[in-house]
Amino acid sequence: MSTVKILEDHELSTESAAVFADIRATRKTEFVNNFWRTLAHDPALLKRTWESVKQVMAPGALDPLTKEMIYIAVSAAQSCEYCVRSHTAAARAKGMTDQQLMELVAIVGMAAETNRLAIALQTPVDEAFKL
Amino acid sequence: MSTVKILEDHELSTESAAVFADIRATRKTEFVNNFWRTLAHDPALLKRTWESVKQVMAPGALDPLTKEMIYIAVSAAQSCEYCVRSHTAAARAKGMTDQQLMELVAIVGMAAETNRLAIALQTPVDEAFKL
Amino acid sequence: MSTVKILEDHELSTESAAVFADIRATRKTEFVNNFWRTLAHDPALLKRTWESVKQVMAPGALDPLTKEMIYIAVSAAQSCEYCVRSHTAAARAKGMTDQQLMELVAIVGMAAETNRLAIALQTPVDEAFKL
Amino acid sequence: MSTVKILEDHELSTESAAVFADIRATRKTEFVNNFWRTLAHDPALLKRTWESVKQVMAPGALDPLTKEMIYIAVSAAQSCEYCVRSHTAAARAKGMTDQQLMELVAIVGMAAETNRLAIALQTPVDEAFKL
Amino acid sequence: MSTVKILEDHELSTESAAVFADIRATRKTEFVNNFWRTLAHDPALLKRTWESVKQVMAPGALDPLTKEMIYIAVSAAQSCEYCVRSHTAAARAKGMTDQQLMELVAIVGMAAETNRLAIALQTPVDEAFKL
Amino acid sequence: MSTVKILEDHELSTESAAVFADIRATRKTEFVNNFWRTLAHDPALLKRTWESVKQVMAPGALDPLTKEMIYIAVSAAQSCEYCVRSHTAAARAKGMTDQQLMELVAIVGMAAETNRLAIALQTPVDEAFKL
Repeated sequence: MSTVKILEDHELSTESAAVFADIRATRKTEFVNNFWRTLAHDPALLKRTWESVKQVMAPGALDPLTKEMIYIAVSAAQSCEYCVRSHTAAARAKGMTDQQLMELVAIVGMAAETNRLAIALQTPVDEAFKL
Repeated sequence: MSTVKILEDHELSTESAAVFADIRATRKTEFVNNFWRTLAHDPALLKRTWESVKQVMAPGALDPLTKEMIYIAVSAAQSCEYCVRSHTAAARAKGMTDQQLMELVAIVGMAAETNRLAIALQTPVDEAFKL
Repeated sequence: MSTVKILEDHELSTESAAVFADIRATRKTEFVNNFWRTLAHDPALLKRTWESVKQVMAPGALDPLTKEMIYIAVSAAQSCEYCVRSHTAAARAKGMTDQQLMELVAIVGMAAETNRLAIALQTPVDEAFKL
Repeated sequence: MSTVKILEDHELSTESAAVFADIRATRKTEFVNNFWRTLAHDPALLKRTWESVKQVMAPGALDPLTKEMIYIAVSAAQSCEYCVRSHTAAARAKGMTDQQLMELVAIVGMAAETNRLAIALQTPVDEAFKL
Repeated sequence: MSTVKILEDHELSTESAAVFADIRATRKTEFVNNFWRTLAHDPALLKRTWESVKQVMAPGALDPLTKEMIYIAVSAAQSCEYCVRSHTAAARAKGMTDQQLMELVAIVGMAAETNRLAIALQTPVDEAFKL
Repeated sequence: MSTVKILEDHELSTESAAVFADIRATRKTEFVNNFWRTLAHDPALLKRTWESVKQVMAPGALDPLTKEMIYIAVSAAQSCEYCVRSHTAAARAKGMTDQQLMELVAIVGMAAETNRLAIALQTPVDEAFKL
């Protein structure tokens, strides 16, 4: 159903197989989801995207669950079903409760509304917000 | 510069003035930003939006700073300059560091990229993500 | 400031000049706004776009003011400052009141919010909505 | 299929049940669509959203059918299948004809096109549109 | 499943049938896809859209395959499944290889990411980019 | 005007300075634009983004000018002024003519229009497009 074949393990190039091995080792599971199986047609794209996601989502000044919730928020704002579903699953695996999800969703909706109000009325940025 | 006049305090209806009073009391500042001054043309819209924002952004299962960062993420994903600037200012006032902002921004960018990869290739949602 | 030169009347090709003449005759004004002056670099694009806008915005099953308001709504939803401003001016010229504008804006905001709620939660379409 | 359970009537909290009762009374039908059944996990969000929709979509300076058509336009511009389908059904129930729908859709398409032309060429806003 | 009926050949108006005949003659195939079958409810919209697509996608300063790939890029950026799928099929019919598709997709993803980084940080346009 | 300081050369960390040196060497110019100067607050983000852009935009199955034009198309579709302007400048530096730009822009507009038509009418994907 994707516009390129979803590659199975035995169809991977050596370079893509190495990335899959790292995905499995990092996530401690045999499961590799379709997203990576479509990117695997382009080993450089696969490797770059995986390395970047691993780096961006690692614990830092923000904790991993907060990071997953921000990912969900952007994915909803950009109408990406795959990303909403996969990162909601990831956030739940990291402990997100139904209450946290509903609060997150409420903020996404509220931000979407006020975004459009400000744009529809072309509200000028206050001087106070320019530092 | 907005498409409706930015109302000054002495131009407010009684109902809008009451909302402004609550904004000032809640935020503990005399400053009321342009967003509310354009909405004030429609007191019902002003009141409803303010009450909703107050409710959504209050401490709950998510802390107020996390909420502001999610707000910034959605605003960036939807290309709203006013909202990016006003909520970045709000997040800084709540203690957001430069490092936290840069991590937030990195997630927004990464999510935007993977959103488009999944949509461009029409990657089907894995059964594992459907519960 | 645009990425192609804003063409003045004396810089137009014969074909573009003919379109400008029709814009002026149709709108009963000498003023031709920048949008058309950038498209004029490609006379076929200019002509096609003008003919389409003239056809789409003509009175039909919907009246011209309703059509302008729908145009504003889409432009706000897609973050196009130029289009929000030019079509708000056009709607006002056709009699849109401040109250109508504020109601329009409220719907845009509300739709934006519920759009994101439905996408964030991946709400399935009810059978009743599939005819 | 949604990322939270679609709640059935017997699973509602007292507060959510009260909102459902008002939805049924206002709409004069027993049918409550999935949108509200997902929001019902957060009674405050459910109540706030329903009260806002009821207020925004009520007759005012714009008639209810015009309001539904603006809702469809925004939903199409933001790629929300659920919202396009549910509000198209609502508009039909209020008397929207096929001809009105096709004119609406033509405006949405035309606005989307000219939005992108103006942004792609970074056309500056004419002084005449700044009041 | 569409919100208007997908019209079959025997249901077309004379004007819409003439457009279908031109689609078949131009594309050298009997197949007319659903997109045109929904637009056929509004013969003026059908004719205008077909004439525009035919004109825009014809060989010019850009070759037809490059044009199809740009079409895919915009469709992915705007979350349109129908358009991603139909134009990916069209590009493949014009010779697009898997490698070209993957490079295209990588650019779409990268552009999406840097778009959001620039908006999230409100990076000012360099003077050097204003000509 | 950006929400983080635009860093000057003497304010860079050692790691960011090394990336700037590579940007200068690769592009054969002393000029480093604001985009990189804001990312430089997060050396890992700066380095990762620069390495990715360098890799994605290098000659491959698509030539560099085609790649820049696809970048412009996505940036216009996502309403990013900074990106439209910077990549239009880059494309011109690689030889893009006014005619090529206008054809590109016409495709962006046409794709935006048909995207919205398909979504507004919820046109189902033809079986023929699912391979």
